[in-house]
Amino acid sequence: MSSPTSADFLQEAVTLAVTNVQSGRGGPFAALVVSDDDVIATGTNRVTTENDPTAHAEITAIRAACEARGDFELTGCTLYSSCEPCPMCLGAIYWTRLDRVVYAATSDQAAAAGFDDAHIYEEIDKPPPRRRIPMEQHDGVAARRPFEAWANYEERIEY
Amino acid sequence: MSSPTSADFLQEAVTLAVTNVQSGRGGPFAALVVSDDDVIATGTNRVTTENDPTAHAEITAIRAACEARGDFELTGCTLYSSCEPCPMCLGAIYWTRLDRVVYAATSDQAAAAGFDDAHIYEEIDKPPPRRRIPMEQHDGVAARRPFEAWANYEERIEY
Repeated sequence: MSSPTSADFLQEAVTLAVTNVQSGRGGPFAALVVSDDDVIATGTNRVTTENDPTAHAEITAIRAACEARGDFELTGCTLYSSCEPCPMCLGAIYWTRLDRVVYAATSDQAAAAGFDDAHIYEEIDKPPPRRRIPMEQHDGVAARRPFEAWANYEERIEY
Repeated sequence: MSSPTSADFLQEAVTLAVTNVQSGRGGPFAALVVSDDDVIATGTNRVTTENDPTAHAEITAIRAACEARGDFELTGCTLYSSCEPCPMCLGAIYWTRLDRVVYAATSDQAAAAGFDDAHIYEEIDKPPPRRRIPMEQHDGVAARRPFEAWANYEERIEY
């Protein structure tokens, strides 16, 4: 039997995304984490059914794969997603240290279907106080104390 | 009794972040979701103890607040964070439709303590295939099928 191809994994993600919609579990997105041609976890969008705005397909797949592996990193793994990741998922992909991401639908196709993340990508480059959701830095608290506690905590696990 | 100020909430976040480190639960970060001067949820970094790379303080606070409210949006709420949000958390903040974010430590202070997210912010502006974690769009699967299923699913809950 020949090894599955990227198209096979993407097809599986797309099929899962369709099923996710039709079963009423959430939005039209799914993702797979693959290691050495094995699917170690799948994830679908569950935002509305779990009341969790972070439950995008990529995030749920990453969380499930990390749980399955007992690790907070997924070095050596590829994420197959039915759609191009949003900025939140892109950030998660970097923290997870995945090797590679392969996706089917583009952000433009998602936007045409009502799932537009371009406005978030645009916000990132603005100075924090000028963002649509303003982000203000305040002085006056000992902001470095947590970092000092970290430096002094000998059993810390770096991540 | 006078209402708590932003400095009060930030101080609470900083104290929680210190406690989080000293109790061995995770990294030096904490956040609060506040609605009408009430703290509706707190969150701390749990990446290493929960094997969840997405368990940043802001994400855990947002997830807890959404669970408490039974809603996938937090309109009207302010997020107080011990530190400037990373790109993943910034994305989550937009999807959650928070009103405002107030933070203490800057990204530069976090980077000096070993928590550098500048490399992720830099990646976002690169073309996907040229990122350090390459992101490749593949044709050949019916990428639009999930969106078609969504458009045809009459009970869909928009988000």
